[in-house]
Amino acid sequence: MPLPQTNYHPPFNITRASHLVFTAQDLAASKAFYTEVIGLIVSDEDANTLWLRGVEERGHHSLTLKRTTDTPSCECIGMHVFDEEDLDKAKSHFDRTGIAAKFVEVPFQGRTLRFTDPMGTPVELIATMQTQPRAHVAINTHKGARALRMDHYQVLVPDVLTTAKFYMDLGFRISDYLYVEAAQRVVGTFLHRKDNPWDIVLLMRSGPRFHHGGYVVEAFEDIVRACDVAGNLGFADRVEHGPGRHGHQHSYYLYLRDPDGHRTELLLPGIQIIDSDDEPMMCPVKPDANSNLWGLPAPKSWVEEATNFAGVPVKQTMDGTPMTAERYLAEKTKEAVAK
Amino acid sequence: MPLPQTNYHPPFNITRASHLVFTAQDLAASKAFYTEVIGLIVSDEDANTLWLRGVEERGHHSLTLKRTTDTPSCECIGMHVFDEEDLDKAKSHFDRTGIAAKFVEVPFQGRTLRFTDPMGTPVELIATMQTQPRAHVAINTHKGARALRMDHYQVLVPDVLTTAKFYMDLGFRISDYLYVEAAQRVVGTFLHRKDNPWDIVLLMRSGPRFHHGGYVVEAFEDIVRACDVAGNLGFADRVEHGPGRHGHQHSYYLYLRDPDGHRTELLLPGIQIIDSDDEPMMCPVKPDANSNLWGLPAPKSWVEEATNFAGVPVKQTMDGTPMTAERYLAEKTKEAVAK
Amino acid sequence: MPLPQTNYHPPFNITRASHLVFTAQDLAASKAFYTEVIGLIVSDEDANTLWLRGVEERGHHSLTLKRTTDTPSCECIGMHVFDEEDLDKAKSHFDRTGIAAKFVEVPFQGRTLRFTDPMGTPVELIATMQTQPRAHVAINTHKGARALRMDHYQVLVPDVLTTAKFYMDLGFRISDYLYVEAAQRVVGTFLHRKDNPWDIVLLMRSGPRFHHGGYVVEAFEDIVRACDVAGNLGFADRVEHGPGRHGHQHSYYLYLRDPDGHRTELLLPGIQIIDSDDEPMMCPVKPDANSNLWGLPAPKSWVEEATNFAGVPVKQTMDGTPMTAERYLAEKTKEAVAK
Amino acid sequence: MPLPQTNYHPPFNITRASHLVFTAQDLAASKAFYTEVIGLIVSDEDANTLWLRGVEERGHHSLTLKRTTDTPSCECIGMHVFDEEDLDKAKSHFDRTGIAAKFVEVPFQGRTLRFTDPMGTPVELIATMQTQPRAHVAINTHKGARALRMDHYQVLVPDVLTTAKFYMDLGFRISDYLYVEAAQRVVGTFLHRKDNPWDIVLLMRSGPRFHHGGYVVEAFEDIVRACDVAGNLGFADRVEHGPGRHGHQHSYYLYLRDPDGHRTELLLPGIQIIDSDDEPMMCPVKPDANSNLWGLPAPKSWVEEATNFAGVPVKQTMDGTPMTAERYLAEKTKEAVAK
Repeated sequence: MPLPQTNYHPPFNITRASHLVFTAQDLAASKAFYTEVIGLIVSDEDANTLWLRGVEERGHHSLTLKRTTDTPSCECIGMHVFDEEDLDKAKSHFDRTGIAAKFVEVPFQGRTLRFTDPMGTPVELIATMQTQPRAHVAINTHKGARALRMDHYQVLVPDVLTTAKFYMDLGFRISDYLYVEAAQRVVGTFLHRKDNPWDIVLLMRSGPRFHHGGYVVEAFEDIVRACDVAGNLGFADRVEHGPGRHGHQHSYYLYLRDPDGHRTELLLPGIQIIDSDDEPMMCPVKPDANSNLWGLPAPKSWVEEATNFAGVPVKQTMDGTPMTAERYLAEKTKEAVAK
Repeated sequence: MPLPQTNYHPPFNITRASHLVFTAQDLAASKAFYTEVIGLIVSDEDANTLWLRGVEERGHHSLTLKRTTDTPSCECIGMHVFDEEDLDKAKSHFDRTGIAAKFVEVPFQGRTLRFTDPMGTPVELIATMQTQPRAHVAINTHKGARALRMDHYQVLVPDVLTTAKFYMDLGFRISDYLYVEAAQRVVGTFLHRKDNPWDIVLLMRSGPRFHHGGYVVEAFEDIVRACDVAGNLGFADRVEHGPGRHGHQHSYYLYLRDPDGHRTELLLPGIQIIDSDDEPMMCPVKPDANSNLWGLPAPKSWVEEATNFAGVPVKQTMDGTPMTAERYLAEKTKEAVAK
Repeated sequence: MPLPQTNYHPPFNITRASHLVFTAQDLAASKAFYTEVIGLIVSDEDANTLWLRGVEERGHHSLTLKRTTDTPSCECIGMHVFDEEDLDKAKSHFDRTGIAAKFVEVPFQGRTLRFTDPMGTPVELIATMQTQPRAHVAINTHKGARALRMDHYQVLVPDVLTTAKFYMDLGFRISDYLYVEAAQRVVGTFLHRKDNPWDIVLLMRSGPRFHHGGYVVEAFEDIVRACDVAGNLGFADRVEHGPGRHGHQHSYYLYLRDPDGHRTELLLPGIQIIDSDDEPMMCPVKPDANSNLWGLPAPKSWVEEATNFAGVPVKQTMDGTPMTAERYLAEKTKEAVAK
Repeated sequence: MPLPQTNYHPPFNITRASHLVFTAQDLAASKAFYTEVIGLIVSDEDANTLWLRGVEERGHHSLTLKRTTDTPSCECIGMHVFDEEDLDKAKSHFDRTGIAAKFVEVPFQGRTLRFTDPMGTPVELIATMQTQPRAHVAINTHKGARALRMDHYQVLVPDVLTTAKFYMDLGFRISDYLYVEAAQRVVGTFLHRKDNPWDIVLLMRSGPRFHHGGYVVEAFEDIVRACDVAGNLGFADRVEHGPGRHGHQHSYYLYLRDPDGHRTELLLPGIQIIDSDDEPMMCPVKPDANSNLWGLPAPKSWVEEATNFAGVPVKQTMDGTPMTAERYLAEKTKEAVAK
């Protein structure tokens, strides 16, 4: 299957990845993690729900945590459309194309349209949310990584190109894609609507499963501070991977797992991609190589573990055998011994 | 005059501020300044012209310097439209509305449409440019501030709202505006097309004159490095203002003057502004106060000096008496003596 | 008078500049300033006194503030000797050389020996202090500049070389000295005992007066955070000078005035100076030039204002006319007009 | 064996760890590594030798690399004494105590006294070296980590306390020591002469072997730049461990292996330790725990591999089974499966 083409005249105008909804078993632990380490602000909370936002965000929440006694899950990923009219256009489009979509009530949000993408990922669209004061300049109130804003999320799906086509029909563009040359197969796509390379990243694995949500920080020092605070507050083992720098001209990363195992990436702002001649960049993936510019390959937990979407069955796929930190270290030892 | 409204269905799609053309008397001095201090890359040069780009930029140039023996000037500001079709739409629109616009040949650029805005500012529109490899990851080749990409420019005009209306009819939005409450007057507008708050900034002064172009850097440390390098290479007196932090929730700044006096701002990436309910933010300006979060007010040179547009007459206006570093320091001394 | 020579076998072993005692009119305001902006930790406080330390410091206090209704002053500068035996040696030495010195009781300090140096500066020597846990790793508790530790202080004296000789007889070395070539006069000496270039800095001005105390921060970003917090908490006008970088191979600086006008410098760790062949470096001072690597010259307030030592008369001297920000800006404007 | 006591009246005055001599098989590769990644300056080079220094260093070299076709080794560790007189005192002391010590000729160094410590580690003492201009302010010439100065080295020895006693008799103090409570055994000591916690670190392993030399950098961003440059120039696999932050209130680290396997640590300046009441701090080591504040435990290569001293036999010792990255990751996976 060739790389799908972007529909530059989409039926409605999605503007960006905007929010996530998780369930969590211990809201107090989650609150400590997200406010002290990631540096999110509590916009509201009640006995069963916690609404969080980045220090730059005007929207009331980019992360909602709901108390559960079940296995923690992701309820949905959320996207912003430009205005209310786009919600109506979206409803018409989904009705027309046979995709179940319905308006639901969600606290602090304007009209909210829920639908399910072809892989089964639950998505909600909003045009407005209650607003809060931006706090990015209130440095004296910042904590941990001082996360600025939600940037993107990564979803694991067994069929990357089918899923990518669905979103590209809705106007998404590919900034980069991961290509296994030996297998002549696209195993990942970085899709975006806003002016940087990422809103939704699709990676070929059993799925649909939620892999991580990415918050942008101002500078590398904020990533370091997150690590220091994690270490001081008993969250050191929640630092799963990094800091390091991705290959393929991507930026620095740190991956952390929250107390329920949901994964957050901290990253610097991506490059600007706007121009029409900005062609998708092919990123060759070599199964036996470390794809990072520097830093260990991701550990097995990063490669294999993810959050299920609530009630959505996971379709298995062969993952191949991506390089891991474990394999990398073992092979390095073998080489040293061979010498 | 009330704040103009954005036309959300503009006649063609301008995507961003993209490039500038200056004349310069000593290209060797300019080259040293922009490559060593600002950290731009030379994409091409010949005996009379220097083409420069930021380390992240794919476009061949965001800054063109042409040798002159006359008073240095700004030939035009440049904007990017989404695709070639937009250039045709733009030509039709200008023809229809009686604005002279013509296609011109510019090296390394695709079709280029030149027009003049209502204040007399020469503008050129392009949809494509020759491309170059992005070099933002080639850290070992970076110098000075390692400027990433052109972000915006500031133009001084005697009539801010008329000019703003012209650009808002073309789809620009206001992120913030400067408002003198005593005079009930808008004296500045921050206008943007891309997903951050600035593409063109209009400030009320005699004009049209070019005030500064802003390049985004990755982190504050890059601003400090620019200062250190400027100091080491004999450009210390070209550091005109800063580093400091703007008020009104804006970011850090450093303003430098190149050897011909053209002004560059180094700044961090702005906040993300996309949502339709992101209303223009009113920034009250108090004539007798320092508007910065910290740092001295701008010196008189920043307030008064600017680059003329080649051959464009300057219409005088009353500037008021904005606070300057000179006045601020003098008043502080007076207060201390009074005690 | 030639540069004095260091006595490498001093009568007792002073190890470092260690603490300062100021009086202050509003302890609550001082506490806010030093804890939120500078980032010091309150080790103890009572109705009339505040004891503060840097986040790295084990010693109970490096800064003591005592409530006063009089003009705020500096009670003494403090130095550490290696051990108790050195205090006895110091007492003997001062007795022998006719310098009045007496042991005094100071809360939280071990035996404390007070004496007055030849210019009239009150000095106290200690070998021990109550200790507190170092908190430099407790990043999650840090505020503002997260100042690590007291590094040095600067005292204004009318006779620099006489004062320098006094301290060099006690083992201090000169790292650098400021020399006005036209007048063939040493106008400043940077003296140190510890392994970096500064413990006490002497500058020729009417005195003795206390000019500033310097706290070391980890990185430039900590200086920027201090500015941001100062701006947010109403202390923006307490940022007196900087950030900038000193000339003569010195480091970055920021000078702030506390609510009583006492001045603090934030700086990065100095270079390491230990070797016996590390000769004093001559730093030529040109009265009409900006001596900074970058950044405006110091404003008049920095040049002229200082804290008196409690009850110590000030001997006037001719200050010359050092370059100031005010003069620098005025001359730049004149040059621009002349063109 | 109890912790040895420092002799505060040592027979001669060692001031600091100052230099290292390695052999290397490919000087061109070493030069690229140390100048581009670590950021050292070449003070001199000839066909068979490379002399390098940190950007702040006045001494001609802190690292000497000599061409070899044999297995790369460490020729000696180097220490600075205060002045020439100390070299004579040292010679007398060693003669008196039956330790072979002789003066040798070393290019660019003043009189150089070689001796062997009780474990067999070859050490050389110098009082002077040819000097070079400090270059720490010449930011525009800096590369990679811009390493400032040699700070310390770590030597593996089978008998830590005997070795520590030898150095403490020469005036070294213990800042911290690693203590295995279960075995009631000191397995490491951090020894220093200068005003920060480290000059020579002793760790219990088969030895004597050279483990790493530490260069101080100005800020964490310099560590990140070293990684970026390593990634860009083909040295990514030379990044062995980190970046991370040590436990026990220590600082950030990055460990790299040069082309011959010699190990360099990049670290920030340590805390200041001068006062006589600064008691050795006990750092409990738990064999089954990650001792870092954050970051993976060291990989097996860091735990097991080191550089032999030229011609010095290695005495084996039981290393215990320290936690490694490999074991840590494997146990984490087991725990996840168990859930």
